[in-house]
Amino acid sequence: MSPTKKLGKYMRHFLTLKDYTKEEILEIIDIALEIKKNLKNKVYKKELDMQTLGMIFEKSSTRTRVSFETGMYQLGGHALFLSNRDIHLGRGEPVKDTARVISSMCDMLMIRTFAHSMIEEFAKYSKVPVINGLTDTYHPVQLLADYMTMMEYGIHEKATVAYVGDGNNMTHSWLMLCAKMGFNLKIATPKGYEVDSQILEDALKMAKESGAKIKVMNDPKEAIHNASIVTTDTWASMGQEEEKEKRKQVFKGFMVDDLMMCLAKKKAKFLHCLPAYREQEVTESVLEAHADIVFDEAENRLHVQKGLMVWLDKQRDK
Amino acid sequence: MSPTKKLGKYMRHFLTLKDYTKEEILEIIDIALEIKKNLKNKVYKKELDMQTLGMIFEKSSTRTRVSFETGMYQLGGHALFLSNRDIHLGRGEPVKDTARVISSMCDMLMIRTFAHSMIEEFAKYSKVPVINGLTDTYHPVQLLADYMTMMEYGIHEKATVAYVGDGNNMTHSWLMLCAKMGFNLKIATPKGYEVDSQILEDALKMAKESGAKIKVMNDPKEAIHNASIVTTDTWASMGQEEEKEKRKQVFKGFMVDDLMMCLAKKKAKFLHCLPAYREQEVTESVLEAHADIVFDEAENRLHVQKGLMVWLDKQRDK
Amino acid sequence: MSPTKKLGKYMRHFLTLKDYTKEEILEIIDIALEIKKNLKNKVYKKELDMQTLGMIFEKSSTRTRVSFETGMYQLGGHALFLSNRDIHLGRGEPVKDTARVISSMCDMLMIRTFAHSMIEEFAKYSKVPVINGLTDTYHPVQLLADYMTMMEYGIHEKATVAYVGDGNNMTHSWLMLCAKMGFNLKIATPKGYEVDSQILEDALKMAKESGAKIKVMNDPKEAIHNASIVTTDTWASMGQEEEKEKRKQVFKGFMVDDLMMCLAKKKAKFLHCLPAYREQEVTESVLEAHADIVFDEAENRLHVQKGLMVWLDKQRDK
Repeated sequence: MSPTKKLGKYMRHFLTLKDYTKEEILEIIDIALEIKKNLKNKVYKKELDMQTLGMIFEKSSTRTRVSFETGMYQLGGHALFLSNRDIHLGRGEPVKDTARVISSMCDMLMIRTFAHSMIEEFAKYSKVPVINGLTDTYHPVQLLADYMTMMEYGIHEKATVAYVGDGNNMTHSWLMLCAKMGFNLKIATPKGYEVDSQILEDALKMAKESGAKIKVMNDPKEAIHNASIVTTDTWASMGQEEEKEKRKQVFKGFMVDDLMMCLAKKKAKFLHCLPAYREQEVTESVLEAHADIVFDEAENRLHVQKGLMVWLDKQRDK
Repeated sequence: MSPTKKLGKYMRHFLTLKDYTKEEILEIIDIALEIKKNLKNKVYKKELDMQTLGMIFEKSSTRTRVSFETGMYQLGGHALFLSNRDIHLGRGEPVKDTARVISSMCDMLMIRTFAHSMIEEFAKYSKVPVINGLTDTYHPVQLLADYMTMMEYGIHEKATVAYVGDGNNMTHSWLMLCAKMGFNLKIATPKGYEVDSQILEDALKMAKESGAKIKVMNDPKEAIHNASIVTTDTWASMGQEEEKEKRKQVFKGFMVDDLMMCLAKKKAKFLHCLPAYREQEVTESVLEAHADIVFDEAENRLHVQKGLMVWLDKQRDK
Repeated sequence: MSPTKKLGKYMRHFLTLKDYTKEEILEIIDIALEIKKNLKNKVYKKELDMQTLGMIFEKSSTRTRVSFETGMYQLGGHALFLSNRDIHLGRGEPVKDTARVISSMCDMLMIRTFAHSMIEEFAKYSKVPVINGLTDTYHPVQLLADYMTMMEYGIHEKATVAYVGDGNNMTHSWLMLCAKMGFNLKIATPKGYEVDSQILEDALKMAKESGAKIKVMNDPKEAIHNASIVTTDTWASMGQEEEKEKRKQVFKGFMVDDLMMCLAKKKAKFLHCLPAYREQEVTESVLEAHADIVFDEAENRLHVQKGLMVWLDKQRDK
């Protein structure tokens, strides 16, 4: 999405990594690393002093809630929590009205919703930057945290990431991250659960520029073979509860267990955006063996989102 | 309501404009205009530093929530959100107990509830100022925002306001505002949906002093004829959902459309407290033609409530 | 619970008074008294500046919510409210995962839940101090407020406390408080509603050291006879609503009325943790006659919890 004019100034939204360059992604993570270091030393620069982040959760999430609310507070600002009991985008009043009103009272907005088109419509009418806290199509803040974690563990350069599981918003965001940053990504999904073909096409096009290598397949073993990072996601996302049992059958061979991890490189790392369903997409044994990096990855949501908010705020001051 | 004694000091509640003089209303708006100017210049005086506003929402409202919470934060204070999932006034324990406990822990309270008698009972036992964030009878903070907007647009002096629609809490508050400030008000409601007769009587009595002119009627065209400001409200307020279809029939001729607006003065303004239901009380065309003032009116909720809270805080320091 | 090692430092949880010495309880209340005095003089030391308290409410409570959230704010920190609509411990993901994630983003946690074992499991994996905001077994923060109130009224030394009613979490916490502080406690419950026998045994053992005298019985009159403080609690706690009618029959003779209070010492005080159900565990007449101390007791939740949080924070800095 191109910069939107606002009161003679420019601003950026953060709806998908597709709109961001490799340099911008690294800028955001650099700020995050600095802020994380400062936090450990109890240094607070209050970069967003007196600013309010409106958080609209049409889909609930403890992790996203705590990380944004705590993060905003640690930046000197305030986060305002609107749950799906408090607000229904597009019901009662048109999204464009809600966007115009709320963005006249808040300095930044985070929206976690279903249809990606909803957040695009909202952003169109918003006077302030809008952050995608998850849609059915993308989950870009999680991928910022993942890449930050990869950098901290020194495993981002020439990484070969194997994603095994559902071709969902996480997978789409892995595609975007990989295409931008230029590493290798192998995606294995069951037949019928492939990634969106348009998003794949976009990623492949961008990969040509960055040198990224992307392969999609249906065999999880093939994907994990020689990978330096293995990752997965829940088999049934929010809203797919009724498909749960069917999906358990379909995804049977995609569970990341110790044997699967043996196919990957020695010292390969395992990532998970959590919550992790044991003995479904991952075993207790694999998760706990990689608990250090997995919970660092979770904690990095806090830091990287702070980096993102500071970065977005800087853009509009330009 | 006369000032309540508290620990040797006096304090005021804000339950209805009826309790306020023209001078006091202007004082509040003056503070609001100053605070709004400061905000645009990023000047924060933190007038309510370390104070907590308890917000009790028995009726939910995104607009009221965001404006009070952000407003309190921008004044250096904290707003605490109690939804109707967290508290039920008068259920579980008597209102007087809840009032005594909560008011011993907060510095100010905002209550949005059904029966106006509930907020009166609460205020009676509260040790701190209580603000009416909407009851079935009155919506005074909205009218403060409306008058502030009228002042900013220079249309408050000698205004002739036409309110067409349901004789509800908004209408009652327009009656109070008009009677205090001394402009002209024409109210058209369908038969059977007239304003409360006691409130009308009170308003007419006060109007004699202020020079306000108030007329009630059943013909929306007559009301809008030559008006300088046209306003309306939803036909079915919260809690009247089951009457919705019936009301659509009854209020048919009360929709503010372009033809209706032609009856008003040239350059007449349209106000709406939102949310606006298109092709019911107002057409898309009218609303979008007046979007500038309507969304300024919405934003002014933020500013005028800050003015109100600062004003109320000052009263108890006297 | 013995101090937990964390990043080379030690920290304490606050799950039950059983883990605390008399000296530690008095230290906490001393800090609370100091903070309360400062608040009345509008002195804010912001002892927990930039810290976040995560509040997990699996059982809702306005009083606990307002006191912790306002308290944290007045200490310079931020309290984050997770209701039972936002989080379900042990559902979706194992408690140990939730504990590891949330405690990596917050500086302290308050949990109000059902099973005491749940909070113990959470604390085991938490990287930050966990406060018990009520479980089915204990309610220690209420008892801190009660003892602080007793101290303020000068009725703590050589007190004889009569608790009449259900043998529940409040009773268990009275047992712990008494056993630690060394006063006299007489507990009268209906047959079949006695306190937990293991907790009673623990209390009797500790009482030997402190010199506390503890008696349990089934006759409320015998308990109240010559008591200097009378207290009770609701007959049907949250989750026992379906037993309500049956319990009304069982607890009939346990209502604290004026006649009951006559059996106590002259000038005996009445305490209640609220909400109070009139004409059930206590009459309107008794409650209102003792409203001063009862609402001071409620307000002290605010102050003593601030004392507790400051104390817990100091422990980990050692």
